[in-house]
Amino acid sequence: MTSLDLTTEGADVVALTRALVDLPSESGQEGPIADAVEAALRALPHLAVERVGNSVVARTELGRAQRVVIAGHLDTVPAAGNLPSTQQGPFLYGLGACDMKGGLAVALRLAATVTAPVHDVTYVFYECEEVEGDRNGLRRIAAERPGLLADADLAVLMEPSDAGVEAGCQGVLSADIVVRGERAHTARAWMGVNAAHLAAPVLQRLADHTPERVVIDGLEYRERLSTVAVRAGVAGNVVPDECVVSVNSRFAPSRSSEEAEAYVRGLFPEYDVQVTEVVPGALPGLDRLGGLLDVLGAEPRPKLGWTDVARFAALGVPALNYGPGDPSLAHTAGEYVPVEQLRGCEERLRKWLL
Amino acid sequence: MTSLDLTTEGADVVALTRALVDLPSESGQEGPIADAVEAALRALPHLAVERVGNSVVARTELGRAQRVVIAGHLDTVPAAGNLPSTQQGPFLYGLGACDMKGGLAVALRLAATVTAPVHDVTYVFYECEEVEGDRNGLRRIAAERPGLLADADLAVLMEPSDAGVEAGCQGVLSADIVVRGERAHTARAWMGVNAAHLAAPVLQRLADHTPERVVIDGLEYRERLSTVAVRAGVAGNVVPDECVVSVNSRFAPSRSSEEAEAYVRGLFPEYDVQVTEVVPGALPGLDRLGGLLDVLGAEPRPKLGWTDVARFAALGVPALNYGPGDPSLAHTAGEYVPVEQLRGCEERLRKWLL
Repeated sequence: MTSLDLTTEGADVVALTRALVDLPSESGQEGPIADAVEAALRALPHLAVERVGNSVVARTELGRAQRVVIAGHLDTVPAAGNLPSTQQGPFLYGLGACDMKGGLAVALRLAATVTAPVHDVTYVFYECEEVEGDRNGLRRIAAERPGLLADADLAVLMEPSDAGVEAGCQGVLSADIVVRGERAHTARAWMGVNAAHLAAPVLQRLADHTPERVVIDGLEYRERLSTVAVRAGVAGNVVPDECVVSVNSRFAPSRSSEEAEAYVRGLFPEYDVQVTEVVPGALPGLDRLGGLLDVLGAEPRPKLGWTDVARFAALGVPALNYGPGDPSLAHTAGEYVPVEQLRGCEERLRKWLL
Repeated sequence: MTSLDLTTEGADVVALTRALVDLPSESGQEGPIADAVEAALRALPHLAVERVGNSVVARTELGRAQRVVIAGHLDTVPAAGNLPSTQQGPFLYGLGACDMKGGLAVALRLAATVTAPVHDVTYVFYECEEVEGDRNGLRRIAAERPGLLADADLAVLMEPSDAGVEAGCQGVLSADIVVRGERAHTARAWMGVNAAHLAAPVLQRLADHTPERVVIDGLEYRERLSTVAVRAGVAGNVVPDECVVSVNSRFAPSRSSEEAEAYVRGLFPEYDVQVTEVVPGALPGLDRLGGLLDVLGAEPRPKLGWTDVARFAALGVPALNYGPGDPSLAHTAGEYVPVEQLRGCEERLRKWLL
């Protein structure tokens, strides 16, 4: 088992980020990183540690007036030739460096070194954030062990936010647009109906779609509808009888799940639209974040991606995104995190907790 | 091992077709059917049997003035809920009933029961006709054991032709049109370029394409360009950076491989077109078929699909398609073969050989 060094002098947040990047944890394969995180936290006497699947929760139990959550996901998208980690000047490169091994490293450092915080802290390191929601580790903890989360007054989700504060989050909807034709041998293709050819106007409509921008609490949420997959094909000499266009919609937190679903269905009224997942966003709720914004010293921006702040919002816990790394680099092969942001995030959160 | 009964009284061509349908042989999985065919033929003392991969060749060696080939492929496309075989009145249904277990059954019956034909006969039962050409069993025999085929004067390929004579065959070209974009997180999709959206005009151009019709020896060859697969997709929240549209072109036998390739490239001059396979067709050559047309008693029609008659044409052996089953049913889930055609084809070819 990989051993994570959280406390030794010289084992700083940069070295820890590299160690975490070099411990691959594509969604569904978080066992080794969860083992390493759990073992490192269990070695710390000031924390009560629980394991739920491949997620790990560690709580201080100091009887403070307030409790805060500091949370991050353990998984990454699939590798894209970007392992192992490398450091080039002030930037640390590698799979998950930005999304979100850097944030994990900050949280683990705080968990290990801030032994007597002014607020009680619940650290949550969870699995399967980058895949379909029913596998999400935070969802599972909220469902199976709600007491571990619901007693918090505020949550900081350490998703990359360029070390700024990103408030609320957009909702996300996944749907399959199923286009049906009729199978035939390609030598007599006119006997069938080519589903891939029928899908051309679906893709063109998606290419031409003009998304909206929605302003809430002074923050502009920028919507988007993207094709994420196209699948057609039976065999090399067969006219395909089905073409499935999978789309991913990001919608402003002021829209309900029902509104988001009606919107996508309304764009494709003549097609079979199968909604596979829809989760609402979270309103920014800037008035409910207490003094945290002052400590972090950053002007809040809207969070465009869906993040698990929405799960905290659903539990009644106000939450914001705050973490190292430029969110526009998430899921790119060249993702990186600035070393200075790793150190800055650790320092500001430490100040908040001390 | 399944045992095929080729000779017992009552074990007629219909029962044999059903037995062959019920012995699944999707391309690449022909081992069991090849074993059964080989064992059945080795039990016949008038045949010299050879095995090449999962293909089987059986020859009479009677020193006749002429030698003819009777050939068929052992494989089928993937099942589509059409197993096992069923007989409904005058039709026999099931995977491969039409393409081409019926033709195989006719050939096996002739091999077993016509022990002293007027022409020497080379029976060829071969693997992997329904997939890419470099796996084709007939190609492999021609390459590794050319002497088994090249001494023939005429070949009958028992592909479904509705018990008529289909002359020559069209060529076939397979190509991938690769559309490239740039990957990004879907929450910030404007940071990337969606390859699936860029593929919309490619599919529309294919949908709008008007194929040509080419007349040779009075036979009309009907060309066609079909999409057979579309593949795009990285993950549910990633803008895909590549969309591959696979096309299948059927072109008249008067066009060379080079002309066919230039034609498809000319339709997509601004895209990366990767030709994965191109094989020319076979001209009908009606004047070279000797008296066979009279015996079969059918007016020749053009063969629109590519068939392995082109491989015989390349060896200098004139060839035609003649077999039971409507070729327009090939590769459809509801394919069937008329019982009457099974019996008729067997009878006419038996007359020719006796």
